[in-house]
Amino acid sequence: MSETLNQNAVDLQEAMLQIGQNAKSAAHILATASSAEKNSWLNAMADALDASTETIIQANKTDMENGKKNGLSDAMLDRLLLTPERIHAIADAVRHVISLDDPAGKILSSTTRPNGLRIDKVSVPIGVIGIIYESRPNVTVDAATLCLKAGNAVILRGGSEAIHSNLALAKCISDAAIAKGMPAGAVQVLPWTTREAVGIMLKMDSYLDLIIPRGGERLIRTVVEQSTIPVIKHYKGVCHIFVDKVCDFDRALTIIENAKCQRPGVCNALETLLIHKEAAKTFVPRIVKHLQERNVELRGCPQCCELAESGIIPATEEDWYAEYLSLTLSVRIVDDVNAAIDHINHYGSGHSDCILTTDMETAETFLNGVDSSSVYVNASTRFTDGGEFGMGAEIGISTDKLHARGPMGLPELTTYKYKIYGSGQVR
Amino acid sequence: MSETLNQNAVDLQEAMLQIGQNAKSAAHILATASSAEKNSWLNAMADALDASTETIIQANKTDMENGKKNGLSDAMLDRLLLTPERIHAIADAVRHVISLDDPAGKILSSTTRPNGLRIDKVSVPIGVIGIIYESRPNVTVDAATLCLKAGNAVILRGGSEAIHSNLALAKCISDAAIAKGMPAGAVQVLPWTTREAVGIMLKMDSYLDLIIPRGGERLIRTVVEQSTIPVIKHYKGVCHIFVDKVCDFDRALTIIENAKCQRPGVCNALETLLIHKEAAKTFVPRIVKHLQERNVELRGCPQCCELAESGIIPATEEDWYAEYLSLTLSVRIVDDVNAAIDHINHYGSGHSDCILTTDMETAETFLNGVDSSSVYVNASTRFTDGGEFGMGAEIGISTDKLHARGPMGLPELTTYKYKIYGSGQVR
Repeated sequence: MSETLNQNAVDLQEAMLQIGQNAKSAAHILATASSAEKNSWLNAMADALDASTETIIQANKTDMENGKKNGLSDAMLDRLLLTPERIHAIADAVRHVISLDDPAGKILSSTTRPNGLRIDKVSVPIGVIGIIYESRPNVTVDAATLCLKAGNAVILRGGSEAIHSNLALAKCISDAAIAKGMPAGAVQVLPWTTREAVGIMLKMDSYLDLIIPRGGERLIRTVVEQSTIPVIKHYKGVCHIFVDKVCDFDRALTIIENAKCQRPGVCNALETLLIHKEAAKTFVPRIVKHLQERNVELRGCPQCCELAESGIIPATEEDWYAEYLSLTLSVRIVDDVNAAIDHINHYGSGHSDCILTTDMETAETFLNGVDSSSVYVNASTRFTDGGEFGMGAEIGISTDKLHARGPMGLPELTTYKYKIYGSGQVR
Repeated sequence: MSETLNQNAVDLQEAMLQIGQNAKSAAHILATASSAEKNSWLNAMADALDASTETIIQANKTDMENGKKNGLSDAMLDRLLLTPERIHAIADAVRHVISLDDPAGKILSSTTRPNGLRIDKVSVPIGVIGIIYESRPNVTVDAATLCLKAGNAVILRGGSEAIHSNLALAKCISDAAIAKGMPAGAVQVLPWTTREAVGIMLKMDSYLDLIIPRGGERLIRTVVEQSTIPVIKHYKGVCHIFVDKVCDFDRALTIIENAKCQRPGVCNALETLLIHKEAAKTFVPRIVKHLQERNVELRGCPQCCELAESGIIPATEEDWYAEYLSLTLSVRIVDDVNAAIDHINHYGSGHSDCILTTDMETAETFLNGVDSSSVYVNASTRFTDGGEFGMGAEIGISTDKLHARGPMGLPELTTYKYKIYGSGQVR
């Protein structure tokens, strides 16, 4: 028994290394592929998705049946479900990526040194990117097409609940593009959803250049703990709005409502409201009433509970760190903009934070002092998104500070190299 | 006994967290410091180094005596040694950094969206940077000043052999700058050189944003294995020159000699020479003679050993991976530019590689196909260096692909944030 297990472990290790090698070989070919070639592969993928709708839905049925057997919630089952309309939408998303500018091969800068060396800094694909994600099968195609458009090979590892759908989607797009000349290792889905396979993948730093985990905080923490490959991620979005003492308070009601209520389950939704002490007396009762009418549960600091007429739960220390992802909001009264900045830099997640003010000097203090990817004046935090930022597509959002910060589009899927043109220079 | 050990472990953990907190608080102040303020602190540091030469040399004497007792090699003792001239040179290096452009606070791009939101992408300091390094005490000051110039707080962890010198240097520069208003946590040297302290530091991802290890491959691998903080590094420099079939062969001798012999112990020195098979018959005997006259030990592929008159050792598979860091060179005959690219992408380290050719089409194939930070045509690989690239200063060289690739100067010590100016926009 133990011998069989060991043999299996050896086989898995070898199979994973083979996947890594295939991806790296493909990446070297992709790095020199033209925009026209890459677009022709993407086009074949989009058409194949439309043509293979029936096959994909059959595979998805298996996942749906297993999901029901395993007691997945209705919300999770809905995320898992593929319909002809949804598959067509996935294909159209691929076509949209074709229309975007190729981020690779751009000359970022060019200098000629006194000794005559010309040094060009040129954008190039990153190489091999690993995506680790949960449930939604559309991520399989979205992530693959964005990586490929930028010239990267991709290794996809989805959740076990979507494995049949993911494999069917990957086979469909990969076969179609390979028929048009795409190298075979360019898009690979791991057929194993075990922890062992991920564990091996996260140590394959000779083959993978970047890991992007997409999912819950727990998944992401595990990836960061284990990986010897650079990881870009966001753990969570604890977003703040600070209401300054001078501000358009009517507009504040609308912006706060939008940031909290429009889609409370997403990472750029509002979690904590900070209010300047000089605005608190009049504004706290107004905003409390406004939000309670919209079924928002409020948790406040002692001063805030005092000012509100009723129905505010006292906030605990944990509330200031909390990403509720639901219609719950913590509210705290602070002394001034600096106290707001300190609160955000201490309890926040570096995602998206906003000041509502009519004083542009205070606004600049806030913009400069808050250490987050996206800092707003007088607008909802809900705009932190590749599409809303005009990037055309989004592979994820980073609260890291290295390489990419905030919404990540196609340019963030490239790195650069220096090309140096000499005429015999020596040191 | 065990209780004492546990108590010490708790104390160390707490002391490390305090250092992290101090650094993070300082970083938030540094992020809004003006260029003039930062330069005034750097100026105070440079003057203090000159003024405290005697004290620093006393501390260095302790390290030198311990080093001799512990049997450090003459080369290591020389790297450790501080003299009045060397300290003055360190102070002048600080003054040079003052003269460089502040990389933070630059507007990298600005877009106005159809809904009126203005999105500015602005360069900002990374935050808190940890530098882990060996022996040379000048790194303490060089790394601290570059980090500070870009607005970052820094935690320095040098080698045990230089601990007295490092602490004296850090105290000297830190005290002087604090007297001019620099926040106290901006520059900190760990007083412990134990593995435990580094182990704790590498998990302090709530306080540190980036680790840059500088030293041998073993040190760097340990850091990557343990760290939950992003790491930028280069393990080694296995640099190649490929001699194409058409090329200025006289100039090739000079470039190869320069890349191999001028300073063989550095990461951008040549380690493997690849020669096009059609050039091999005439060029192999010439380059072998040329290099043997310069005391270079050669290890060749079978064909190469056959073509050389004498004295080439047959190369093993390990030779193609080797970073000799000495007057040893491996030589291999390859079929064409594609075989050269495949060899480099397989055995190389992604550092610096060069083609010598007069055929610019082949040159472009090589420039595009080789997956390295710096790819050269007709020049020595020895130019991969911040100074030679015109960056003015260098914090290290990256063979990673994320965030920074190749020589890293001041701009690579910044990240960016988005500042979004609205007028009430909601989604």
